[in-house]
Amino acid sequence: VIVDGVHHRTVVRDGPVVDLIDQPRLPHHFARIRSETLEDTARHIRDMTVRGAGAIGATAAAGMAQAALLGSGDVLARLEAAATVLRATRPTAQNLFHAIDTVLDAARPVSGSARLEAALRAADSVIEADAAACAAIGRAGSPLFTDGMRIATHCNAGWLAFVDWGSALSPIYRAHREGKRLFVWVDETRPRLQGARLTAWELQQEGVDHAVIADNALASRMRLGEVDAVITGADRIATNGDVANKIGTYAVALCARAHGIPFYVAAPRATFDPTTPHGDAIPIEERAPEEVGYTWGRDDAGAFRRVATTGSPCRNPAFDVTPAELVTAWITEDGVHTAPPASR
Amino acid sequence: VIVDGVHHRTVVRDGPVVDLIDQPRLPHHFARIRSETLEDTARHIRDMTVRGAGAIGATAAAGMAQAALLGSGDVLARLEAAATVLRATRPTAQNLFHAIDTVLDAARPVSGSARLEAALRAADSVIEADAAACAAIGRAGSPLFTDGMRIATHCNAGWLAFVDWGSALSPIYRAHREGKRLFVWVDETRPRLQGARLTAWELQQEGVDHAVIADNALASRMRLGEVDAVITGADRIATNGDVANKIGTYAVALCARAHGIPFYVAAPRATFDPTTPHGDAIPIEERAPEEVGYTWGRDDAGAFRRVATTGSPCRNPAFDVTPAELVTAWITEDGVHTAPPASR
Repeated sequence: VIVDGVHHRTVVRDGPVVDLIDQPRLPHHFARIRSETLEDTARHIRDMTVRGAGAIGATAAAGMAQAALLGSGDVLARLEAAATVLRATRPTAQNLFHAIDTVLDAARPVSGSARLEAALRAADSVIEADAAACAAIGRAGSPLFTDGMRIATHCNAGWLAFVDWGSALSPIYRAHREGKRLFVWVDETRPRLQGARLTAWELQQEGVDHAVIADNALASRMRLGEVDAVITGADRIATNGDVANKIGTYAVALCARAHGIPFYVAAPRATFDPTTPHGDAIPIEERAPEEVGYTWGRDDAGAFRRVATTGSPCRNPAFDVTPAELVTAWITEDGVHTAPPASR
Repeated sequence: VIVDGVHHRTVVRDGPVVDLIDQPRLPHHFARIRSETLEDTARHIRDMTVRGAGAIGATAAAGMAQAALLGSGDVLARLEAAATVLRATRPTAQNLFHAIDTVLDAARPVSGSARLEAALRAADSVIEADAAACAAIGRAGSPLFTDGMRIATHCNAGWLAFVDWGSALSPIYRAHREGKRLFVWVDETRPRLQGARLTAWELQQEGVDHAVIADNALASRMRLGEVDAVITGADRIATNGDVANKIGTYAVALCARAHGIPFYVAAPRATFDPTTPHGDAIPIEERAPEEVGYTWGRDDAGAFRRVATTGSPCRNPAFDVTPAELVTAWITEDGVHTAPPASR
């Protein structure tokens, strides 16, 4: 993301340190945070200091590198221990598991001092591949958006959700830089408000015209003919094309279908899970009920404040599944696919 | 509503004083507020100290009585001036206009000291009719809910939205008191959080099992087979049966239809507008963007705190229109109607 003219990647591996944008402090305060231990890195994923499919994957890759570089004894043993810790942070985003497996698979067949080198190279390749895939998604998807279009998105699948560029927002940024005038409906995305806090902030940095609405308000914008297309990211895509993404995506897709509005899903290949045949096999994280019972207040530490009735139980599924039949096209780094793209 | 064993009506006319439950302080603090002037009464409607179709109507009726009792000169002139002030508070809820017209229509044909008496009697009749209609809605609707059902609602159409009992929640309270075990999915209803703050609080007072979820989470509960019926209130119903209700209702209705789940609308006859042929003719209030940019924090004055990116525009339509074809039945004080009930 470009902040005050300076380009920031969301996740940077700096030797054994994982350097992250501190996302809960956004939008009121922009700061980076340096994670010096694997335990801190895992905590930052779990607590959503870093969030978004690609950013989680990149952080896990950098965490694996961190584990390889710190401590003593066998590198592979440290990597396998780190994999166990990192796999337990969040269950849904495929990019997390893809990153961990990529580093392990690179280190396992190599022995001696080459093993450390292979692990670091694999970690860096995960991070660079994420950035490159997102840039390619932008190039592949931007022709879908023509001058004057009003596009809706859900949650944040932009710069902050990946190493660079983002998935759903990448084609919008690309089209905007090509001179197309676009307007984006940003739904706030309760409970964590990634739309109101992060997507709106990114669009502001990029100079893309937008308005924030309550999640409740998008369907009526569709009914009034004010939405030309919807694009979201994905946390995991099954082989049949079913999409797990931020809670609320499914309702947006149903409403888009009811109004004949195209519903696009943008994701790098690393989000496609070749081992999961359909959406109902994707594990859906249920996060702490306090995220619903409380909400953000204005202070740059992102403190929560109680809104719901004290004592009322809250349920907080973090993702839902949108069946493939509601998806108009899947946009990956190798193009726009109108049928579920086969896993490679 | 029953609070600590004491029954409270939401709106009470106490001579020239309008006595209200102070709803922005809920759920963290229960208090009543006494409005001693018409200007304060109008402000309480506009600011949503009192909200909900029937409660707004009853408050307007009590405000008309207040205007008739206070000040000097011709009673009818004062009533007409008050009508102008009150009509300008909020545009969507039909009950507001119904209440004002009922009092004016009663006072106009009568002259002398009988005019004041007629106005007061009409104001009180609006308030009593609201309470009686809501109780009847409960009796009419409770057979729809059988033991073990999981019901979703949106916003608050309970005790606090009417003088007594409520519309959508009245059949649930009735069925619960008849011994049926029910479970209610309460969506939080951004931006004003009437679900998380008011409906959850009411259900707690009544002892009805429930859980609060983000608005985003309801569709996935439907997909998982965990919702047996949906019931909401209405702010205005056109003669063709189209329903204006809290923003987000339309998406809930679309999602219910996609899953074959019945979608009920409960409202007294005073919510049906005989002069509006279809939903697109209903004026939809757009409230201050700050309601979306900010949110409630935990203090009993209901203070707002900034959540959205500063400087990003926000849009805040307060209602949407659900077309009649998505409504399974309209529940009024005279029964369950599977076709749009003709206005009387």
